[in-house]
Amino acid sequence: MIYVIKIGGNIIDNPDNLKSFLGHFAAIKGHKVLIHGGGKLATQLAEKLHIPQQMVHGRRVTDSQTLDIITMVYAGLINKNIVADLSALGCTSLGVCGADADLILAEKRPVKEVDYGYVGDIKHVRDKTLFEWLTQGISPVISPVSHDGQGQLLNTNADTIASVVATALSAYGSVSLIYCFEKMGVLLDVHDDTSVIPALNEESIEKLRNEGLIHSGMLPKLDNAIQTVKNGVESVIIGHANALPDIILGKSGTKISQQ
Amino acid sequence: MIYVIKIGGNIIDNPDNLKSFLGHFAAIKGHKVLIHGGGKLATQLAEKLHIPQQMVHGRRVTDSQTLDIITMVYAGLINKNIVADLSALGCTSLGVCGADADLILAEKRPVKEVDYGYVGDIKHVRDKTLFEWLTQGISPVISPVSHDGQGQLLNTNADTIASVVATALSAYGSVSLIYCFEKMGVLLDVHDDTSVIPALNEESIEKLRNEGLIHSGMLPKLDNAIQTVKNGVESVIIGHANALPDIILGKSGTKISQQ
Repeated sequence: MIYVIKIGGNIIDNPDNLKSFLGHFAAIKGHKVLIHGGGKLATQLAEKLHIPQQMVHGRRVTDSQTLDIITMVYAGLINKNIVADLSALGCTSLGVCGADADLILAEKRPVKEVDYGYVGDIKHVRDKTLFEWLTQGISPVISPVSHDGQGQLLNTNADTIASVVATALSAYGSVSLIYCFEKMGVLLDVHDDTSVIPALNEESIEKLRNEGLIHSGMLPKLDNAIQTVKNGVESVIIGHANALPDIILGKSGTKISQQ
Repeated sequence: MIYVIKIGGNIIDNPDNLKSFLGHFAAIKGHKVLIHGGGKLATQLAEKLHIPQQMVHGRRVTDSQTLDIITMVYAGLINKNIVADLSALGCTSLGVCGADADLILAEKRPVKEVDYGYVGDIKHVRDKTLFEWLTQGISPVISPVSHDGQGQLLNTNADTIASVVATALSAYGSVSLIYCFEKMGVLLDVHDDTSVIPALNEESIEKLRNEGLIHSGMLPKLDNAIQTVKNGVESVIIGHANALPDIILGKSGTKISQQ
């Protein structure tokens, strides 16, 4: 099994959470890839440097100065500290962005209603290189920056990178894509943390959607998960970062698969 | 031949110089490694963030906040933009710091007269991984940050990294280590750019030293170069970044070798 695991700001912004998560990640046997988002550090640095930040539909509008901040914070500070921490845990990892080894080729998002600036939509993943590293015992740690192949770095959504990388790696074996977030899984009752739905597929998601039982914020994640398993990833699991060992054992989180 | 090439601030700080240099680097046939220093960007960012910087004997005292700046600027901003630019030039490269794939293990410099803070002295280079990448057609681009294997990143001198990496790679073939700087080579008369000494060895350096003919700032570089060729690197060449194609052809720069 190849594990592709994505963590976001709620883990990265909290040193204790991150440390705990990285311990669990390092302990996973076999092939594993970590994809990390950004968190609050980029926004904080932008504030200190008086570079105004604009969010549209939850996405950061990325002008040239903001791209520099993202490259510094995501591809530099966060990425390299994760790599150093994993090394101390006995896990040899390689911190990359999508420009490294031409891993993730993207195109600058076309301007429609919104000009998101230097934001990338992924066109291609160089999966062969990623898999070679895995076979060499190296776990790639990917920051959410890609490039256009013409010298331009591009801010790129980490959830999307995780999905595309998982799909590309499914050419080499079974892939489990794990999205770590702040809940134990998809909840039937958003106010009840014990109401985790253990397994979902396209049919059951459709049923819950029609009954209005899925929280609206969760719907895009589930639609993406279904698309990802249709594209060849064995399962997509949504669960709590602290529960990673149980997620790996199939005892925690919500597992979305074809069946 | 494996080329290990080091560039410093005088190239990195000038976009035109950097662009021109990267074009020459990309055009080199065969195995090549690029090691880059920092330049003024880290100092400028520190100023904007009101983090006072202290230099002792030309070295940056690196407290925790300064280490974050260095990690952001060197391992993030500079490193990833070089990689994206090289890709656009048809050169697949991989931007790393010494923590990546455990490439460069160092120890925090012991405190003697000066406490340099989070500054690393190199203990070991994982040359096998570097050479594997070279054989895969990937040119490593190394930023001057190493780690101690216990989770701590360390600011590390780029000239030293270049020398240690070149020495380690000499186990796999002939290595030429090229230090690019702002002069055409070692000058017999520091005011006359045409007075480049084409070739030096231990004996001739000793002779020039005794005659007081070598500029004092150049002596440590030459002593390091002699040590590096004694350690197995075929030649160390000191020359101008703009002259890289001629340096490769043996037509420019000062070549330091055993004979």
